[in-house]
Amino acid sequence: MRELRTGAADGGAARALPSFERIAVVGATGLVGREALTLLAERSVEPERVSALASERSGGGKAAYGGASIPVGVATERALRGVDLALLCADSSVARALTPGLLARGVTVIDNSAAHRMDPSVPLVVPSVNGEALDGRPLLVANPNCSTIILLSALDPLRRAFGVEAVDVATYQAASGAGARGVEELLRQARAFAAGADAAPEAFPEPCLFNVFCHESAVDPDTGLNGEEAKIIAESRRIWLDRALAVSPTCVRTPTLRAHAQAVRVRLMRPATEREVRERIALTPGLLVVDDRGRGRFPTPLRASGRDEVLVGRIRPDPATGCAGDERCKAFQMFVCADQLRVGAALNALRIAERLDALRGGG
Amino acid sequence: MRELRTGAADGGAARALPSFERIAVVGATGLVGREALTLLAERSVEPERVSALASERSGGGKAAYGGASIPVGVATERALRGVDLALLCADSSVARALTPGLLARGVTVIDNSAAHRMDPSVPLVVPSVNGEALDGRPLLVANPNCSTIILLSALDPLRRAFGVEAVDVATYQAASGAGARGVEELLRQARAFAAGADAAPEAFPEPCLFNVFCHESAVDPDTGLNGEEAKIIAESRRIWLDRALAVSPTCVRTPTLRAHAQAVRVRLMRPATEREVRERIALTPGLLVVDDRGRGRFPTPLRASGRDEVLVGRIRPDPATGCAGDERCKAFQMFVCADQLRVGAALNALRIAERLDALRGGG
Repeated sequence: MRELRTGAADGGAARALPSFERIAVVGATGLVGREALTLLAERSVEPERVSALASERSGGGKAAYGGASIPVGVATERALRGVDLALLCADSSVARALTPGLLARGVTVIDNSAAHRMDPSVPLVVPSVNGEALDGRPLLVANPNCSTIILLSALDPLRRAFGVEAVDVATYQAASGAGARGVEELLRQARAFAAGADAAPEAFPEPCLFNVFCHESAVDPDTGLNGEEAKIIAESRRIWLDRALAVSPTCVRTPTLRAHAQAVRVRLMRPATEREVRERIALTPGLLVVDDRGRGRFPTPLRASGRDEVLVGRIRPDPATGCAGDERCKAFQMFVCADQLRVGAALNALRIAERLDALRGGG
Repeated sequence: MRELRTGAADGGAARALPSFERIAVVGATGLVGREALTLLAERSVEPERVSALASERSGGGKAAYGGASIPVGVATERALRGVDLALLCADSSVARALTPGLLARGVTVIDNSAAHRMDPSVPLVVPSVNGEALDGRPLLVANPNCSTIILLSALDPLRRAFGVEAVDVATYQAASGAGARGVEELLRQARAFAAGADAAPEAFPEPCLFNVFCHESAVDPDTGLNGEEAKIIAESRRIWLDRALAVSPTCVRTPTLRAHAQAVRVRLMRPATEREVRERIALTPGLLVVDDRGRGRFPTPLRASGRDEVLVGRIRPDPATGCAGDERCKAFQMFVCADQLRVGAALNALRIAERLDALRGGG
């Protein structure tokens, strides 16, 4: 399904990410870190250029790298010496601890955590959406939340063509969003069910198997928004440079493994026909329309898993508008699925790295 | 959790549904039919008053009735002779075949199928919402779709107090909505997973375990709506007597067993404070507010399973409105869960029967 690619436009045998001689993946034993290693290996980055690093608890073993494996070190200042690019795939506290030292040594840092996302001095980037935010070649770049990346990737062609006034989104988020612990908990509960046993929730506040529940991030006592919903709102406004953007999210965990789904309603500034909406999405690199009404074939998390595209389907005029046929319409609905570990995390970080590399003259 | 109740207001030892001496449950071996029998037994309807009937393929065995069991006959015209109330828990074709004969003999028919829902001469009723539609003591009453019942039950107190202009709803629908086959398929896939095997989809068009997918009803080639979405729109407008009601649904199956969940956004005609919205819902019989922001406790399908209430939580002003604190606001979001076999099907039918019984002087 995926092809090996290099960073070079001509394909050939050019080195990937040539301007970053040494690359560290911090949090290399986590789900996103492992995905980052997979992506580097797919791009044929030579294993000797890659340092896989983890916490003291998780370091010391080996990590898969393409068909081979590389050692996993501990993410100390010393282990990070000589690194040109650090992909931080760890939590906010690790990111906050390591970033100042890395920046002081001129290391380019792409941070998957929430630590720097709302810092106005740090660009928050989905390359296909606001890649120009990288033009100043910042040393530190924040990778948005997975749900934000997937949502904005799908809607950005509509924003560019017609303007976006409001977005309603209800999510169906995979257990992998809570890391390996989340996935293991769901699998453990499935095995326990088959054995006629019980497996109490530990990673999540509710049983995950045969259930859906409010995203486990804390719910703000005043606004009633959970952390994930608050992130989607704030990050979408930041990335689209639109403080007035109306966003109404509901974030829910479902018993799925690695791809998120989203039921989306979008209100446009200028009306469009369904055909125009469909074309804009279909023509956008990184988006794949899966929308076969006759055969009932639409995006699903299983279909999106392991893929690099955001799958978009069930594209239809919002029935509340009363628009029929190919009338111009101001609101549309759609169903979006994407692999949150790849598209929603590691792949977005890699694309940021590739764009920075090109700006540094590497590409 | 549930108490035995009788149809009588005084509780006591009065007979349940006294004006219906003999009651038939057609489709008694299906999930909704079994639930109807459970509900009759909970109300202490004497087993000798109840005929459990099914198709030729499914009849002949026994059905659980309270702690005991009753024989399951075949749903022929003959088996239905002498019946006063027929609860049809079968599909539309069975309902269409049996209804004319039953009505001709003066039998009260409550039909769970979609056969008569859009017939303007047949009341479509959620008793707590439009129970007055039963005042004419109709012989034939249609039970709405499960998603419609749950959605309108939760929102009706807001419609009464503030008016409802628009409803957006994304559903998380249990496998039980597709009947016993749906539930068995999900359970079989969980067991196969644990055994390291594969269980291909048969009841559903997509794998159900670890997946979410567009509701399996056919998708209209013109509107792009699936059948479930079209039902929610048409039935909500019929029940609320509001042809202009804006409804924007997305109906999705999730790997859950028997309760549906819904992420709802409602736009009111007259603004309300969050406190008012919360109070209206809390004071409505049949609704239960589960909304503990501090402890992260909200409605879930597992929490709603086996219960007679619609669970409502995550009540919050739509953040797109910018309303803060207890300002008056025109749009709210909430998360709703209810047992679709009980609240969304059999219990609604029983409540229709109880109301008709009271109108006939039975209660």
